Amino acid sequence: MIAGDGNGARKWAMLSSRKVYECNVFSVFERESRGPDGRVGRFAVMEAKDWAVVVPYVRTENGTSFLMVRQYRHGADEVSLEFPGGVVEPGEDPAHAAARELAEETGWVSARILHAGTVFPNPAIQDNHFHVFVSLDPEPKVTRNLDSNEIIDAHLMPADEIRQKMGTGELRHALMVTALFLADKCVAALGEKPARQAES
Amino acid sequence: MIAGDGNGARKWAMLSSRKVYECNVFSVFERESRGPDGRVGRFAVMEAKDWAVVVPYVRTENGTSFLMVRQYRHGADEVSLEFPGGVVEPGEDPAHAAARELAEETGWVSARILHAGTVFPNPAIQDNHFHVFVSLDPEPKVTRNLDSNEIIDAHLMPADEIRQKMGTGELRHALMVTALFLADKCVAALGEKPARQAES
Repeated sequence: MIAGDGNGARKWAMLSSRKVYECNVFSVFERESRGPDGRVGRFAVMEAKDWAVVVPYVRTENGTSFLMVRQYRHGADEVSLEFPGGVVEPGEDPAHAAARELAEETGWVSARILHAGTVFPNPAIQDNHFHVFVSLDPEPKVTRNLDSNEIIDAHLMPADEIRQKMGTGELRHALMVTALFLADKCVAALGEKPARQAES
Repeated sequence: MIAGDGNGARKWAMLSSRKVYECNVFSVFERESRGPDGRVGRFAVMEAKDWAVVVPYVRTENGTSFLMVRQYRHGADEVSLEFPGGVVEPGEDPAHAAARELAEETGWVSARILHAGTVFPNPAIQDNHFHVFVSLDPEPKVTRNLDSNEIIDAHLMPADEIRQKMGTGELRHALMVTALFLADKCVAALGEKPARQAES
């Protein structure tokens, strides 16, 4: 440790929590909490359902492509190119949510869904998790099924081009940068075997 | 395009926006917007100040270390090991905010602050930006200056260990995964030159 007294590693204790806003995507709570040294502070926290995303690796004649979705994002007022994903419904297994969102947004289905990692989208102000999955060799099999508020196009994009451009232009969704990092690490750990036999 | 009609690449138009919640960290707005095909929907959006983070590369006898901060995070109710960072104040240059947060949280100062990228923390529901910077060869020079609600320890952590563990345990802040990805890409683009001479 180069600065501090070790209290950074200790949790605060919640003294009170009050819901101050609620919509269909998240709720906001105002909490009062006591730190490990006794100080008391007030903090706003968003509670939300978990989110799941899936990075689909598709082998083509020209190498690996990612199956991706392009859609307008209301927060940033920008069009965004992303990996398929969405909300994990209460009681739903995150892997099921990832496969379901893949099918709903693209019509593609994969027998191989691997867990690449689970992180917090923003642990400072949100309580929910962000689950990242890999889909190996998905194929077009079902009819898309979009929500009434979704206008989404699906595209196959060369994986190396996405890796190179990630963080720029249409590829500025931070959680997608995180997803790519964890997915590529997961696939690399499978070794040199072709994706189709990776788990057999 | 393998699915869709091209409307995923077109913006929606905001029809109305109403502030429904405000605290010192963010405000919530309920918006009504019209899609490119004419459909109208309601969306909740968080407006917040931009955030800046800095990945500090420190050369030690045992190779590169990252200067990192450990603190409790109220949203996730978890202790988190992160790169220094915080809010960009109105009118402040993001690079200044990164250097300021580095000094305030660790007491270390760097003459070399490089921009590694700017993304959206979550463009689906937030309007703000997340700016990622690299700090080369920072050194301990000033007294830390924490906010009244901050209890933060600073640590030097071996960079390769952080890269390997990123996404697990204390290293599950998604925005820090994004920061590491963009920072390492930025430093790799500097070439083989030692960090100290990278910009000279």
